[in-house]
Amino acid sequence: MRLLEERILRDGKVRDGNVLKVDSFLNHQMDVKLFGEMAKEFFRLFGNDQVNQILTIEASGIGIACITAQVFNCPVIFAKKSKTKNIAGDVYTAKVDSFTHGGTYDIIVSKEYLVSSDRVLIIDDFLANGSALTGLASLVKDAGATLIGAGIAIEKAFQHGGDALREQGLRIESLAKIKSMENGKIEF
Amino acid sequence: MRLLEERILRDGKVRDGNVLKVDSFLNHQMDVKLFGEMAKEFFRLFGNDQVNQILTIEASGIGIACITAQVFNCPVIFAKKSKTKNIAGDVYTAKVDSFTHGGTYDIIVSKEYLVSSDRVLIIDDFLANGSALTGLASLVKDAGATLIGAGIAIEKAFQHGGDALREQGLRIESLAKIKSMENGKIEF
Repeated sequence: MRLLEERILRDGKVRDGNVLKVDSFLNHQMDVKLFGEMAKEFFRLFGNDQVNQILTIEASGIGIACITAQVFNCPVIFAKKSKTKNIAGDVYTAKVDSFTHGGTYDIIVSKEYLVSSDRVLIIDDFLANGSALTGLASLVKDAGATLIGAGIAIEKAFQHGGDALREQGLRIESLAKIKSMENGKIEF
Repeated sequence: MRLLEERILRDGKVRDGNVLKVDSFLNHQMDVKLFGEMAKEFFRLFGNDQVNQILTIEASGIGIACITAQVFNCPVIFAKKSKTKNIAGDVYTAKVDSFTHGGTYDIIVSKEYLVSSDRVLIIDDFLANGSALTGLASLVKDAGATLIGAGIAIEKAFQHGGDALREQGLRIESLAKIKSMENGKIEF
């Protein structure tokens, strides 16, 4: 998606450790107009797949997911990163390795809101090593729901998390796919 | 706002410890159509105040804030709950007591995205003891920005966090204001 690629080139900053800083428009300050265009693109890609539930993960996936859900006319459910006393009862859970923070954390969704009749589209801001996406996909599988695919804003293709998941048959559509960030130069 | 009150009465569940569980439509699964109606109501209340930045806090404020920002035609910035390596450089910070999780945590926003010319509307899902809102307001103050007010989905008025902040001159508009939840019965 050219609009997103141009924005990454204009405002993205490459930091040490393969970190792409896009917090002026994507995951700290959020440009909801851009999100609206991204949502339309996700709908162009997945609009014929009878999606009835969008699944994302807190925190920075939530904004894109909500605006995408408006276009798909369906609710969003976001996986939480730790068990809070506000989620009672049965949950599906998966372990995720954090690229940004290091370490491992649990993600959970309530069994009440992810059910076997659901046709689920996963939406997230980043795909790097694929750990979050793998965890989200396993929640969908545990619920017995149908996983339509994943819509990702930015895929760091050089980290190859997407490759492995695609080989397993998951349909992943990334709006900007970064081939390389060597020497601070972003290439799609 | 009658639509939200009716939804709380229909789907909200009162749990021990003054917890109101609204995670079927507000803060786990999210009804973005309802958020759209709430956004219009926030715009009716604050639409003449030249808001150019919406400030919220991760995670469950983000969805409502993004959809509200579409109506206000402005970006959202969300305060993060801990310092990640994706936020470099200078940040404004405040301490917040957690009602849901217990304990205290730091919230931060990058100085880059909250500046003295900003006219800020705070949006959040809950107002209970007022600690998150107090923290967010102090970030705005530290930035030298203008705090227009706060738009809250659900205020637990019996916890009185809103009273103290209103006495300090903050304009708070809550779409549903719960007077009491005694014996599991919600009264507005």
